[in-house]
Amino acid sequence: MDQEYSSTLLENAVTALSRLPGVGRKTALRLALHLLRRPEDEAVEIGQSLIDLRRNIRYCSVCHNISETEVCPICSSGNRRRSTVCVVENVRDVMSIEATGQFDGLYHVLGGLVSPVDGIGPDMLEIESLVKRVGSGEIDEVILALSATMEGDTTNYYIYRRLTAKGVSPKPIKITQLARGVSVGNELEYTDEVTLGRSLLNRTPFEDTY
Amino acid sequence: MDQEYSSTLLENAVTALSRLPGVGRKTALRLALHLLRRPEDEAVEIGQSLIDLRRNIRYCSVCHNISETEVCPICSSGNRRRSTVCVVENVRDVMSIEATGQFDGLYHVLGGLVSPVDGIGPDMLEIESLVKRVGSGEIDEVILALSATMEGDTTNYYIYRRLTAKGVSPKPIKITQLARGVSVGNELEYTDEVTLGRSLLNRTPFEDTY
Repeated sequence: MDQEYSSTLLENAVTALSRLPGVGRKTALRLALHLLRRPEDEAVEIGQSLIDLRRNIRYCSVCHNISETEVCPICSSGNRRRSTVCVVENVRDVMSIEATGQFDGLYHVLGGLVSPVDGIGPDMLEIESLVKRVGSGEIDEVILALSATMEGDTTNYYIYRRLTAKGVSPKPIKITQLARGVSVGNELEYTDEVTLGRSLLNRTPFEDTY
Repeated sequence: MDQEYSSTLLENAVTALSRLPGVGRKTALRLALHLLRRPEDEAVEIGQSLIDLRRNIRYCSVCHNISETEVCPICSSGNRRRSTVCVVENVRDVMSIEATGQFDGLYHVLGGLVSPVDGIGPDMLEIESLVKRVGSGEIDEVILALSATMEGDTTNYYIYRRLTAKGVSPKPIKITQLARGVSVGNELEYTDEVTLGRSLLNRTPFEDTY
């Protein structure tokens, strides 16, 4: 669908916006025309915030979470259990786990999952830096908090093999993964059989759940 | 849902993006994190294009379509029928009609529709400038191409009364509106009865349709 725009400024904005995921040219045009109806400040604020974000963001040198400082606030906090590291796929997963309020350890952001189909090998992820962290001897437990998908399982397995290899950790470490089970609020009828099977195998004492 | 971001740059970008229509904070976060994974140029291009768009866009002094020049390319074209003016609600409608390739006249962009519910009166739209254009005596036909809604009908009626008032046009002008009828490709079964009634009343000779 080639539409004729009466302005190259509009054309440029639409082309740029339609590079965003889930934004087609129709939506991009709607967004651009919306900005034209709003005060100039608003468009400038949106535009500038995107430029600033990409230009000035850094990644924590320890856990690879986004940060504005060399070491992120979580890694440099005195209130976190430094012996527990939760391994996640990306920055959003850190936010999700932080939002639960159930975790007071540190994170390690892989930056993706091993996926042969997409050509992503273990060497393209932050796995060696995790091996180094474990090698420092400060870590007692590594929690694998990856998606319950084939890619997540593959990555879990790779990391497990890598961390339990001889000479990696100076002391025995615990490697755990997130519990698989029935989602809270979900009806049993609509839970798939694999999940249901796992939730039976991993059943917990009744008191535990409160 | 208050989410804690580890970065104020990210926070700012998410807040700014979520001001766009149809973009909530979750989508805004997804877009922002997407930009972080892309080359810096891309984020800068998107951001700068939005700023440039809003800062440098102008509106045609004749038809009020967006333009980069005092008078837009359509109004200054030598190949358009200057005696026919098509009245539309907004810039997007100009694009839609241009895309049909069926119109070679000029446009007049109202900038909205009369809507008492939303507090939009005729004086907030570009109606007086239309009256002036008709008053110049260069126009033979005004095509009302507004939405087939109550607001569209109200605006049509107001413009009709205004343009046919004594002393407005130095010569008799034709005022027409878009045909109402069954949408091309639509099954009769799913056409609402009002539209169907109008399409019966306004039936055209069979040859006309080819």
